[in-house]
Amino acid sequence: MVQEHEYEYSYDYDQLLEELKDVIFRGDEAGARRIFDEYHSVDIDEVLEDVDPPDLKFFLFMLDFESVANLLENADEDLQLEMIRFYSDQELIEIFTYMVNADVADLLGYVPTQRRKSLLNFMKKSDSNTLQMILSYDEDSAGGVMTTEFISLKENLNVREALLKIKDIAPTTEIIESIFITDDYHRLQGVVDLREILVAPGYTPLSDLIEEVPFFVYADEDQEEAANLIYKYDLKYLPVVNKNRAILGVITSEDIIEVMDQEYSEDILAMSGVSKDEEYDSNFLESLKSRMPWLIVNLFTAFLASFVVSMFESTISQVVALAAAMPIVTGMGGNAGNQALSVVLTSIARGEMTLVDDWPLIIKEIVLGIFNGAVIGILTGAILFFRYHNIFLGLIIFAAMVLNMIIAGIAGFLLPLLFDHFKVDPAISSPIFLTTCTDIFGFFIFLGLASLLLDKLV
Amino acid sequence: MVQEHEYEYSYDYDQLLEELKDVIFRGDEAGARRIFDEYHSVDIDEVLEDVDPPDLKFFLFMLDFESVANLLENADEDLQLEMIRFYSDQELIEIFTYMVNADVADLLGYVPTQRRKSLLNFMKKSDSNTLQMILSYDEDSAGGVMTTEFISLKENLNVREALLKIKDIAPTTEIIESIFITDDYHRLQGVVDLREILVAPGYTPLSDLIEEVPFFVYADEDQEEAANLIYKYDLKYLPVVNKNRAILGVITSEDIIEVMDQEYSEDILAMSGVSKDEEYDSNFLESLKSRMPWLIVNLFTAFLASFVVSMFESTISQVVALAAAMPIVTGMGGNAGNQALSVVLTSIARGEMTLVDDWPLIIKEIVLGIFNGAVIGILTGAILFFRYHNIFLGLIIFAAMVLNMIIAGIAGFLLPLLFDHFKVDPAISSPIFLTTCTDIFGFFIFLGLASLLLDKLV
Repeated sequence: MVQEHEYEYSYDYDQLLEELKDVIFRGDEAGARRIFDEYHSVDIDEVLEDVDPPDLKFFLFMLDFESVANLLENADEDLQLEMIRFYSDQELIEIFTYMVNADVADLLGYVPTQRRKSLLNFMKKSDSNTLQMILSYDEDSAGGVMTTEFISLKENLNVREALLKIKDIAPTTEIIESIFITDDYHRLQGVVDLREILVAPGYTPLSDLIEEVPFFVYADEDQEEAANLIYKYDLKYLPVVNKNRAILGVITSEDIIEVMDQEYSEDILAMSGVSKDEEYDSNFLESLKSRMPWLIVNLFTAFLASFVVSMFESTISQVVALAAAMPIVTGMGGNAGNQALSVVLTSIARGEMTLVDDWPLIIKEIVLGIFNGAVIGILTGAILFFRYHNIFLGLIIFAAMVLNMIIAGIAGFLLPLLFDHFKVDPAISSPIFLTTCTDIFGFFIFLGLASLLLDKLV
Repeated sequence: MVQEHEYEYSYDYDQLLEELKDVIFRGDEAGARRIFDEYHSVDIDEVLEDVDPPDLKFFLFMLDFESVANLLENADEDLQLEMIRFYSDQELIEIFTYMVNADVADLLGYVPTQRRKSLLNFMKKSDSNTLQMILSYDEDSAGGVMTTEFISLKENLNVREALLKIKDIAPTTEIIESIFITDDYHRLQGVVDLREILVAPGYTPLSDLIEEVPFFVYADEDQEEAANLIYKYDLKYLPVVNKNRAILGVITSEDIIEVMDQEYSEDILAMSGVSKDEEYDSNFLESLKSRMPWLIVNLFTAFLASFVVSMFESTISQVVALAAAMPIVTGMGGNAGNQALSVVLTSIARGEMTLVDDWPLIIKEIVLGIFNGAVIGILTGAILFFRYHNIFLGLIIFAAMVLNMIIAGIAGFLLPLLFDHFKVDPAISSPIFLTTCTDIFGFFIFLGLASLLLDKLV
């Protein structure tokens, strides 16, 4: 799609690469500054990924630490590791002061252990404590995605005192709209809206403005749980607490955008048997590693289906029309099963559906299977009848279609719920088992019925 | 998955339904109030969907208008239409005062034209102007999802004046962290961070604090464009402007969560041929309507593939092993094609990939097809050789596998980009054409080669 220049800001990869090379070639510091002012660091990073290390180093050294921090926090893992090699621990720690803790923690998560330790050692104690706390949580947990730059105040302050503190802390926080109120043990007591603080008289105690916080998550819970709460209840912020309910951080709707993008694209990729790390611009070897294993697993199930067919070779050799008709039964079963599967998968992803609560809905899938199978079966049976002038062939494919669509509905509905119940990723595991079911049963039912009625078909 | 009670707030459908029925039966106003305090309106709505209209009306009439507004804005379309029937225009307009404009506009979008007109007529002129402006945009456009409750100030104010205005407007705004600065014609000049206003001396002119707003969208652009900008550049807010660049509203990361959920689940459902309106708890008829049409389309392509097979019936009747082997070729082709397809689809959804910029990556897909096809082809060929003791059968399936995987890679890569280029939803259209390609070519190549080498196979 050709992008019209609908936004003020626009960016062209090739042009930026040209400008970058030129600036590096001429050692033009003002030019480097200008590029940084003109382009978003996300786009500069995209181009820097394709610049040779010596040139990259030369470019970075023309920028101040704040700009480097900006590039660093938007860079992908590989570029980050490349960039930090150019700086001493002392310099990096200074660069980190321009970044939010969550980003620094992400970065430290990739860094070789030795370097991580020495960086944490050199830091201010309070910073390294916060970072080590974040690092102690899985990167896919609530603690791993939370923001630690929020404002928390003690409940015994009044509005005037609170406002003074807020003005003091505000420039270094990510979240300013909601002020979290804690007791002396950092335990979350509630939240006060900045709007209320702005308009209330100075002597008002904060405790008069406090509102309950009905939702929070523990730091070691899965980020997907946090995302589902924010999505379902339309929350601006979700506090993250430790086992003692002391507030550690806050997850915002911005953090959740990242989480949702990850989880959803992982689902789509997983459903097709692609590793979650493959991107459209992954290189040949990455793509090969991402796709080959699943193809081999699929090959195994394809052979299972093929084995079922070969059990009926003598039947097929007598009525060769069966060979042409049988892929219709398995193909349509696969399609119907995928429909049920995708409805269930999107509901599981949203946290709407569980095996325990929703298994009775399987009745609907069975009825749908009967009904869809009947309609598709009648169509298919009629066409085959007119083609081969054998009513039994039509009846057999009708019956096989209905039965296989019932199986498809049950498998497409039940498999993802079962996998989810036993904490196996339903998007990865369900499709392959589903296809195995619909192929094996489809061939078996159709060719089995044909073998039983062989004398009517010949 | 059994939900442990990890959150302070918990909700059980059956229990809430019991409580609701009890409160309605006893006409217990305090009880209704208590339910409203104890449960989130999102959950109350979920239960109210299954309450009979007379009971629903009775329950609503026990609540004040603010609570009704709260229920109304979280309700789904059907429940909303049910609820508003109980209120006069006058009452509804009062209820609307407790809702944000975007939600009122959404609601008015569903309401029968007659009622919408009379509601808009009864309102304050300024409210109905804003609502009509929002309604004039497609519900999937930037204008359709934007928030109109933001703070915009003229650039000639100083900090003290700005703060007075902010305190005045703040209670009714959704967005407070960023203050948008306009000229006399409402044209967006930039943005000031509330943090800056809080800490700057009162006489500071706002123009000293103003920052550029590099990103904005026009109101009639697709919401997906807005979502991609916010996602890519990690924006807190994206201003929405009209053709004259006057600011009309703001899209926040919270709005985008909704958009992303919609777009992604639409993609997953579309890929399997399910209508985007089907939910896990859709009733039988809705599900049938959602799934049947696509099954019929699929049946057509299944017959195309079946027709290809029937062209080779005489070959199959002589070498019946072909019938058992042929689904392996088409099945594996389908799998490989889906892998390419899902990588491209997720990249298109993120706005990362276009036909014009990225078509050269097709080379990688072709090489992957050759390589994956060779590995899978050798495995398959070897197994068939050992099973049927015919080297030619092994060679034929090897060749067919490589060729079909190349076709699968090209189709899986190119189809979604082509559809996207011509503004056809790639998630809906690509899978069916992909399967058609891999099935027809798979059968044709494999059975065609077998026919050519028939004397070596018999």
